Amino acid sequence: MKFEFQNPTKIIFGAGVLARLGEVVRSHGKRALLVTGGGSVKRNGVFDRAAASLKDAGVSVVECSGIEPNPRITSVVRGAEIARKESCEVVIALGGGSTMDASKVIAAAVLYGGDPWDMIGHGQDNWAIPTRALPVITVPTLAATGSEMNSGAVIGSEDLKVKSFVMADCLFPKVALVDPELTLSVPRDQTAFGVCDLITHVTEGYFNGIDGTPIQDRFAEGVILTAMEWGPKAVADGSNLEARTQVQWAALVALNGWVQVGTAFSPPVHMIEHALSAHHDITHGAGLAVVNPAWMRFAVKARPDRFAQFAQRVFGLSTTAKDNLGLALEGIDKFEDFLRSLGCPTHLSELGIADELFSRYAEDAVLVVRDENGNLPGRPPMSKADIVEVLRSAL
Amino acid sequence: MKFEFQNPTKIIFGAGVLARLGEVVRSHGKRALLVTGGGSVKRNGVFDRAAASLKDAGVSVVECSGIEPNPRITSVVRGAEIARKESCEVVIALGGGSTMDASKVIAAAVLYGGDPWDMIGHGQDNWAIPTRALPVITVPTLAATGSEMNSGAVIGSEDLKVKSFVMADCLFPKVALVDPELTLSVPRDQTAFGVCDLITHVTEGYFNGIDGTPIQDRFAEGVILTAMEWGPKAVADGSNLEARTQVQWAALVALNGWVQVGTAFSPPVHMIEHALSAHHDITHGAGLAVVNPAWMRFAVKARPDRFAQFAQRVFGLSTTAKDNLGLALEGIDKFEDFLRSLGCPTHLSELGIADELFSRYAEDAVLVVRDENGNLPGRPPMSKADIVEVLRSAL
Repeated sequence: MKFEFQNPTKIIFGAGVLARLGEVVRSHGKRALLVTGGGSVKRNGVFDRAAASLKDAGVSVVECSGIEPNPRITSVVRGAEIARKESCEVVIALGGGSTMDASKVIAAAVLYGGDPWDMIGHGQDNWAIPTRALPVITVPTLAATGSEMNSGAVIGSEDLKVKSFVMADCLFPKVALVDPELTLSVPRDQTAFGVCDLITHVTEGYFNGIDGTPIQDRFAEGVILTAMEWGPKAVADGSNLEARTQVQWAALVALNGWVQVGTAFSPPVHMIEHALSAHHDITHGAGLAVVNPAWMRFAVKARPDRFAQFAQRVFGLSTTAKDNLGLALEGIDKFEDFLRSLGCPTHLSELGIADELFSRYAEDAVLVVRDENGNLPGRPPMSKADIVEVLRSAL
Repeated sequence: MKFEFQNPTKIIFGAGVLARLGEVVRSHGKRALLVTGGGSVKRNGVFDRAAASLKDAGVSVVECSGIEPNPRITSVVRGAEIARKESCEVVIALGGGSTMDASKVIAAAVLYGGDPWDMIGHGQDNWAIPTRALPVITVPTLAATGSEMNSGAVIGSEDLKVKSFVMADCLFPKVALVDPELTLSVPRDQTAFGVCDLITHVTEGYFNGIDGTPIQDRFAEGVILTAMEWGPKAVADGSNLEARTQVQWAALVALNGWVQVGTAFSPPVHMIEHALSAHHDITHGAGLAVVNPAWMRFAVKARPDRFAQFAQRVFGLSTTAKDNLGLALEGIDKFEDFLRSLGCPTHLSELGIADELFSRYAEDAVLVVRDENGNLPGRPPMSKADIVEVLRSAL
């Protein structure tokens, strides 16, 4: 293990902490851009509560609503124009992963003279990774992406049918104000997709990281076991605040770096899924539910011991009378069973995706992150043919 | 769960990173106070390597050596005087927990006009918790206290025979430069005590935190399981760099807040041990090895299910044909067996401590942290009589 790590975001966590939004924002600025998604926060009253807290604290607010579920660079451009015109000093993300990701890039785009798409890696020669941004306060309304406490953002281009990412220290939110009550009204399917999303964040590091990371392994297993214990309860009864709390905390921890630190992992499942959602506008977590088990069955042969460990520690499967590969495959079956039990799709056909564009998805998956052979990094690295094979197995 | 959390310290981790000390320090100042302990870093060449790196980076160095194993406020006063007189801009802690703790308080004392003992909680009316400090860079040479990446420091008064603590945001080190190679020469007994220390950090939160923290439970178990896997290897063969690396990482994670976050725990075992080491100058980790199992047998009745979980998940003990209390007690026996197998003492007699001062230790243990009834907080809260009972059981 050899690495550097820092995550300066302050967490304020717990049911009811939304009431502190104004006070928190006020310490970063008096004029805020309040970024929201499709309108659920207005329908369920969260927006009004946030607005009241901001008003009480003396923060004036300019709105940027309508961030898409797979956020587009056009929305970033629009948000940055509003923030610049209105002299906003701080950006508030009130929504799910797409709203938070868009907010981060808006916060950087406000201070960037060029086209914000320059900041998103898409195979360009000069990736303008941002070095400064307005302060961002995240207020997640969905337990899924973990974007509330990390430096990453995923943004797509509708024109190019490309969905890609940026990571930069300046994009760490100043504060993640995490109130599980805000997730009580999340529909059953989105709750399930969120659970799948958070689990996939840790499986990427668990299966694609370096050897010799025993604590990180245990932490990843801990997140998965907790998500498997509490996720179904949140899906079964959305009003269960305890379940919502545990799932929300699991989602934050799953991608704030504490689990994967030092593993130097690559996320092949995410790269493949981004290609799918760029073309089909599916929910990221649903796409991951399809790609991850298929990828696991492809990757298991490269690392049967690691998959056997997963089968043993996560599903309590026994080593007796089985070789590691058999045990590993049984663990993958159990994992897919779990996803299905949550209500997640595990086949492309369930997402309405057929095989016409498989080679395009494979091209897109290696657009930004590829090794010296042009392969998608991971364990094992994947050629474009491998990617197509995995997708075909998921039909 | 309802909490706030932030840990801004940057980690630079890995064998060989000591060579980067100069570069790291230089970004925080040109003139450094270099704080060290009893001289092992001079004998094993680490000091010279650190000094060379600092010189190459253009950092001038003033030394403050001789920090005691249980660091004293007199050393803090001395260090702060040197730093002030020599206009140091940054403090480097090159040593174990005592050196790091002293360095943090020195860094605050430099900017404090009063007696530095005001900053250490010892029952005073006005606890002068520091609000500013020089930047601190920690370079641990021992895997134990986790002080390299947290905001706490434990300092004692030789005159008063009191050992107590301070926690303050300004004491978070800017960078924890963690090079497991520096621990290769740590003697076998100190290695074992370090393993006990780190495990005790997570057992405190695990047994004394609130209910309903499943991820934190899993993280704690993960740290313990890793320490139990790799600790004995580091004790058996101090030159095993892989074992040193895993133990070092476990020690850092065990008290940087990632495990206990949100558990709102109190650390009764530490409070009792501090009373012992204030009077007897024993190694903290050795004192914990004595107090922790004795405390567990006292506390088990208050929370048998939690201790049964510990027995199951950490030691793989089975629930069949036993009640939870029986299972729990078996787990505690196994834990004590593990400590003994490492070479740790588990009786006060092994530390040369008899019962003469038991009531004084009990007084000291509640000097700073006590509930409205004057008891030591924890699960369960402990009266002074309880503390004496636990100590008596450890004779």
